[in-house]
Amino acid sequence: MNPPPAEIGAPISDIDTPALIVELDALDRNIAKMAAFSRQTGVRVRPHAKTHKSPAIALRQIAHGAVGQCVQKVGEAEALARGGVTDILVSNQVVGERKLRRLAALAHDATIALCFDSAEQIDAASRVAKDFGVTLGALVEIDVGAERCGVPPGKAAAALARRIADAPNLKFRGLQAYHGRAQHLPTHQQRAQAIASAVDAVRETLDALKAENLSCEIVAGAGTGTFTFEAESGVYNELQVGSYVFMDTDYAKIGNKDGGRYTAFEHSLFVLASVISTPTRERAIVDAGLKSYSGEKGNPWVHGLEDVEVTGISDEHGKLLLGPKAKPLKLGDKVWLIPGHCDPTVNLHDWYVGVRHGRVEALWPISARGAST
Amino acid sequence: MNPPPAEIGAPISDIDTPALIVELDALDRNIAKMAAFSRQTGVRVRPHAKTHKSPAIALRQIAHGAVGQCVQKVGEAEALARGGVTDILVSNQVVGERKLRRLAALAHDATIALCFDSAEQIDAASRVAKDFGVTLGALVEIDVGAERCGVPPGKAAAALARRIADAPNLKFRGLQAYHGRAQHLPTHQQRAQAIASAVDAVRETLDALKAENLSCEIVAGAGTGTFTFEAESGVYNELQVGSYVFMDTDYAKIGNKDGGRYTAFEHSLFVLASVISTPTRERAIVDAGLKSYSGEKGNPWVHGLEDVEVTGISDEHGKLLLGPKAKPLKLGDKVWLIPGHCDPTVNLHDWYVGVRHGRVEALWPISARGAST
Repeated sequence: MNPPPAEIGAPISDIDTPALIVELDALDRNIAKMAAFSRQTGVRVRPHAKTHKSPAIALRQIAHGAVGQCVQKVGEAEALARGGVTDILVSNQVVGERKLRRLAALAHDATIALCFDSAEQIDAASRVAKDFGVTLGALVEIDVGAERCGVPPGKAAAALARRIADAPNLKFRGLQAYHGRAQHLPTHQQRAQAIASAVDAVRETLDALKAENLSCEIVAGAGTGTFTFEAESGVYNELQVGSYVFMDTDYAKIGNKDGGRYTAFEHSLFVLASVISTPTRERAIVDAGLKSYSGEKGNPWVHGLEDVEVTGISDEHGKLLLGPKAKPLKLGDKVWLIPGHCDPTVNLHDWYVGVRHGRVEALWPISARGAST
Repeated sequence: MNPPPAEIGAPISDIDTPALIVELDALDRNIAKMAAFSRQTGVRVRPHAKTHKSPAIALRQIAHGAVGQCVQKVGEAEALARGGVTDILVSNQVVGERKLRRLAALAHDATIALCFDSAEQIDAASRVAKDFGVTLGALVEIDVGAERCGVPPGKAAAALARRIADAPNLKFRGLQAYHGRAQHLPTHQQRAQAIASAVDAVRETLDALKAENLSCEIVAGAGTGTFTFEAESGVYNELQVGSYVFMDTDYAKIGNKDGGRYTAFEHSLFVLASVISTPTRERAIVDAGLKSYSGEKGNPWVHGLEDVEVTGISDEHGKLLLGPKAKPLKLGDKVWLIPGHCDPTVNLHDWYVGVRHGRVEALWPISARGAST
């Protein structure tokens, strides 16, 4: 782990760059807003830690009413459990004896659930859980349109649920019905339609479960782009929102109900960079590139500087174009960049530098950074 | 740092996934081939550690005749120096008192040089070096077409060289003349033309230096896509090749002299993934996504499986499409992925798992992973 790029109490001007900054006021407002939504709608929130990878942020969400956390990887579950999170859903398939053993070991300390889309995996997890003397919660993942993992809705899903219910040391808890592809559909209407179709798939599956006399405690899904639709569906009861804590340009670009941009949550995550070269009046180069933010969703946005944009990114450099209205930049000037995609950006850093009112207030290790097994 | 995903001596089937694999025979052949080229042409090689971020690989290159290493960041220089590398060029601007102090501290243990494209930075580095009682090597970076950092070739560059030569505790060592944009130009001819233009810029600058009575020990540049052109230019004498040790799809896609694909070096770097879901005959999902390989250069290639391709990548998943000629994949099957872009992919991992003849032979920490300050 690299040393933190700042000291608690220092002014922002003293933060070394590149650094991953969390604006704590904005983070807190985002968490509070989602918590209020959950209270108003009566739908539980189980935020996704694949975004933040940090027990510190997980515990903040839980303090605001979140029922636990989602993760994608066993390593993430381990990092959260070590950090005090006691209810964790692996919203993913866990394949391989070694990983199942690690998950079963965790189940002595925390409530653990995971997802299934094959009979073979149900049998394997049951064997391992029995061997460890623990019970693992089990959700059947159904494909509600994402075309990634998951069995078809309806009878195929109910058959897996029955197999879980009959398997030693597994407890059938519900359905994983996340529509990943819907999250970034460009218009409100397209997202609404995609989730309407997901809701139909869930209903069909709930009917099939009823025919099997299986009760379904959890119907889980939703992300930052669609959660209002799942919440008002009457069938989903647990929201797996992740990016809302930070936002990124990829979410900021999607359309809201009125055709404007999506502004329900604030940008709280930034990569702080420094100008290291000013070769021309129009060009400035900063010290943060692909090793400080991910690039597959396009260039980061420049925050708070008029008429300055990122026009090129390379491994360790960002190229800024200063338009006619831009103020000149000089060597050492700090530039705040809004990443294109928050999850893989966070995964590049060892530390969150939490700032409030111009000062460093917190240094949080990104404990599950690189925890990909 | 996460635990290594394998044990030395274990068969490949025992490697946990995702894992970053280095095929050691291929790595060794790539290193030997570049070393032979260096001997034949009499042009020095100073490989770029921004690619591998590993003292273990750096020392392998140096054992084959490389004169030292390049880095982009002070943190990378620190990691290499700790690992036994004694001659390091920061092929980049280093802005900020704190970073300059770290570099000066290193100069007690290793030969350190860095690049300049502004008078202000020359003065700052000179002050710090004097304060530490060390001498820092100094190269003037000229813009040879990359339009990133660097002063214009010719008199502007010679003026900076003069300032360096006159500055206490700095030693003028030469020119940094890297043409980053040329590396991935699609045809051999385009790359040849770009470097011909860079060579003109270097010549113009060498003439201006001669007029200042300044000798130029190092003329540095070149990458894996263009190094033969720089080597035969008669003006470049140090090659900063990085990706040749590993290769990636982005380099494999460029054209060679005969119009075919670039195959001068072998793929030695892979992300090993496992199948975690097989929802349909045509679709398999693996456990490695954007947190295991970077995505900005497109999807990784599948290695060694007929008629299987990656058609979708998300944060922790890769989606494989199995064509009519593909053999079915089953849960737990291992899949070898060739990353789109090696440098940021390496930066996601804590360990290289070095394999040879089907067994794990080495576990090398990626010591400069995330060393971005």
